[in-house]
Amino acid sequence: MSNDRVLLGHGSGGKLSHDLIKDLFVRYFHNPFLDEQTDSALLEIHSGQISFTTDSFVVDPIFFPGGDIGKLSVCGTVNDLAVSGAVPGYLSASFIIEEGFPLDNLEKIVISMVSEAKKAGVLIVTGDTKVVNRTKCDKIFINTTGIGKLAEKHKDISSGRGIQAGDKIIINGSIGDHGMAVLGARDELNIKSDLVSDCACLNHLIQGALTVSDNIRFMRDATRGGLATVLAEVVEGRDFGIRIDESALVINEKVRGFCELLGFDPMYVANEGKVLMIVGREDAKEVLKALRKNEFGQDSKIIGEVVADHPGKGWMTTGIGGNRIIDMLAGEQLPRIC
Amino acid sequence: MSNDRVLLGHGSGGKLSHDLIKDLFVRYFHNPFLDEQTDSALLEIHSGQISFTTDSFVVDPIFFPGGDIGKLSVCGTVNDLAVSGAVPGYLSASFIIEEGFPLDNLEKIVISMVSEAKKAGVLIVTGDTKVVNRTKCDKIFINTTGIGKLAEKHKDISSGRGIQAGDKIIINGSIGDHGMAVLGARDELNIKSDLVSDCACLNHLIQGALTVSDNIRFMRDATRGGLATVLAEVVEGRDFGIRIDESALVINEKVRGFCELLGFDPMYVANEGKVLMIVGREDAKEVLKALRKNEFGQDSKIIGEVVADHPGKGWMTTGIGGNRIIDMLAGEQLPRIC
Repeated sequence: MSNDRVLLGHGSGGKLSHDLIKDLFVRYFHNPFLDEQTDSALLEIHSGQISFTTDSFVVDPIFFPGGDIGKLSVCGTVNDLAVSGAVPGYLSASFIIEEGFPLDNLEKIVISMVSEAKKAGVLIVTGDTKVVNRTKCDKIFINTTGIGKLAEKHKDISSGRGIQAGDKIIINGSIGDHGMAVLGARDELNIKSDLVSDCACLNHLIQGALTVSDNIRFMRDATRGGLATVLAEVVEGRDFGIRIDESALVINEKVRGFCELLGFDPMYVANEGKVLMIVGREDAKEVLKALRKNEFGQDSKIIGEVVADHPGKGWMTTGIGGNRIIDMLAGEQLPRIC
Repeated sequence: MSNDRVLLGHGSGGKLSHDLIKDLFVRYFHNPFLDEQTDSALLEIHSGQISFTTDSFVVDPIFFPGGDIGKLSVCGTVNDLAVSGAVPGYLSASFIIEEGFPLDNLEKIVISMVSEAKKAGVLIVTGDTKVVNRTKCDKIFINTTGIGKLAEKHKDISSGRGIQAGDKIIINGSIGDHGMAVLGARDELNIKSDLVSDCACLNHLIQGALTVSDNIRFMRDATRGGLATVLAEVVEGRDFGIRIDESALVINEKVRGFCELLGFDPMYVANEGKVLMIVGREDAKEVLKALRKNEFGQDSKIIGEVVADHPGKGWMTTGIGGNRIIDMLAGEQLPRIC
C-alpha cells in the first residue's frame, strides 16, 4: 500500500470500497462474523443482559507516544464496557477519512486496532468507511461501538446504586499521563516531551478485581474531564459525599512538571488507562491486591473514601492540610484529547 | 437555544457536556435506558441471536428535501438491521460537531432523529459527543450503531445463502431519488430542483413482507453505489446470475431528467428508502401485495429474476432489446451522499 492514498472512491460503496474492505479490513480484522461481509454482523448472545456503548475518537495527533487513534478507539470502548461490569465481546468500527490520507497510515491504525482487540479478547465484527473531501475532516475519525455480556450481579455497578458511606475509593495508578502525552506530541507546542500515554484496555484488570469481590459498587474510567470530573459526577445528587486525600494521588514527576509549566491541574487531565473504583471497605485490600497483580494496576492505591457528611460534594484534603472542593471541568482544557 | 453555538467545551466531558446531554439529548431521546446516563446502556436481550451494524453519516448538505442528517442516521441503521431480517431495537448515536455549529440546528437534527426513531419503534439508548475546532470537520457527522433481534429462521437472509435460480427480484419503488435530491440541494450546483429524497425507515414494510413469506431469500438496501452495486454484490462469486428488465424499473421523470442533464446513471445513484428483495417465485405475488400495502411500497415491482446461466454476472435487458452487464460502481459518483 506504500505510497497510495485514500480516494473519495474508497467511500463510494462501489468497487474501491470493496477492495479496501477486502485488502485491509477483512485481511486484518478477519473473524467468522466479519468475514460474512454482510452489512450487519449476526451474533449469538447467550446472556440475557448486555451492555452497549459508543464513542467517537478525534484525537490529535493521531499517533502519540503510547498509542494511536486505533488503539485508543479499541481501549476506550472496551473500557466503557468493562467499567459497567460487563465482559466486552464485540466491537463495530466506523471510519471517517479525509481524502488523501495515506493508506499506510490507515494500515498502521488497523494493525494497532487488531493487536489491541486481540489483547482485550474482543472481535471487531462490523464496520463502515466514509471518505470526505480534503479539508472536510482532519485526517481520520473513528467510531467504535461495543457490546458486552453483563452478569446479573453486576448490573448496579454502572449507576453506582449501591455506594454507601465508608466505601473506599481506589484508582489503578498515576493520573494525567494521557492528556499530557497527547499535548506533548502536538507540533505547535514545540516542546520536547517524553511523556507516554497510559492508553490500555483495562478489562482483564477489572475482571481480576470482580473475581475477588462482590462489593465493587461503582467503576468509571477517568477519561475526558479527568479524575475530578468522575468524582463530581458520582456524588451529583446523591446522599453521600467523597473525600480524597491529595497526598495519596500518584502523579508522574514529568506530568506534574508539564502541568505546572502549562497551568494544568492533573485532576482534570484525561487518562485512558485509569479506572476509579468504589469498593466496600471490607474488600478494599483484596481488590488492591488483585489490581496490583495486573500490569496496569501495579501502582493501585486507595485515594479516599465515601463519607456521610457533605452529601453531593467531593472534597480533597490537600497536601498542606487545606480542603478544596472537587468540581466538574468547566470549559475545555484540551480539545481532541480522545 | 436560539442563537447559541456549539463550543469546544460541549465536548470536554465536563460541565458543558453535562448540560448539553441534559438539556438536549436526554430531553428529547429520553427513555429508561438513556436516562440512567451511564457510559453504557444496559439492555435485556431475550433472543439468542442479534444483528449488529454501524454507519457513519457525513451527508452534505445536512438538510435536504425529504430529510436531514438526523433522519438519515436513524433510517440508515434501522434499514441495515431490517434487511438482515432482524427487528431493530436499539441505537447508539455519536456526534462529531464542528465548533461554532448552531445549537438550534443541532436541536432540529435531534428532533428529527427522535421522530424517526419513534416511527421505527427503536430507542436511542446511548451516545457520545465530540467537538472539534473550526474547520476540522464539516458541520456535523453522526454515527449510529444498531442492535436488532434476529429470529432463527431469518438468519440466512443477509448472506443470501438460499438464493436459487427462478427466484424473483423485487424492489419497493423508484430508484435514484435520494442521490439526486441531495445533489439538487447543493448550493454550488445553482440548479433549482424539487426532487425529494426517499429517505425512510423500511422496517415495518419489511416486517410486513416477512409475515407473509418464509421464502424471502435475501434483502439489501440499495444505498451508496445504487441498485447496480447491490445486484453486482449479490451475484459475486455465486453459482447463479441475475437478469433485470430495464423497462420494469421505476424512475421518477424528474430524477431521469436530472440524471440525463448531469450524466448520471440512475442504477448507480444512492437510495435511502429502497430495499431489493429476492423471493422464492411461489411467494413473489404475496410479497408484492404485502409491500404495496405499506406507504413506502406502493410502487413495488418485480424487476427481474435469478437465472442459472451466466453465474456470477448480472445482466440487464435494456428498453431497446439489448443487454448490458451490471457492474459495481467504479470510482465515486457523488461523495457525501449519506
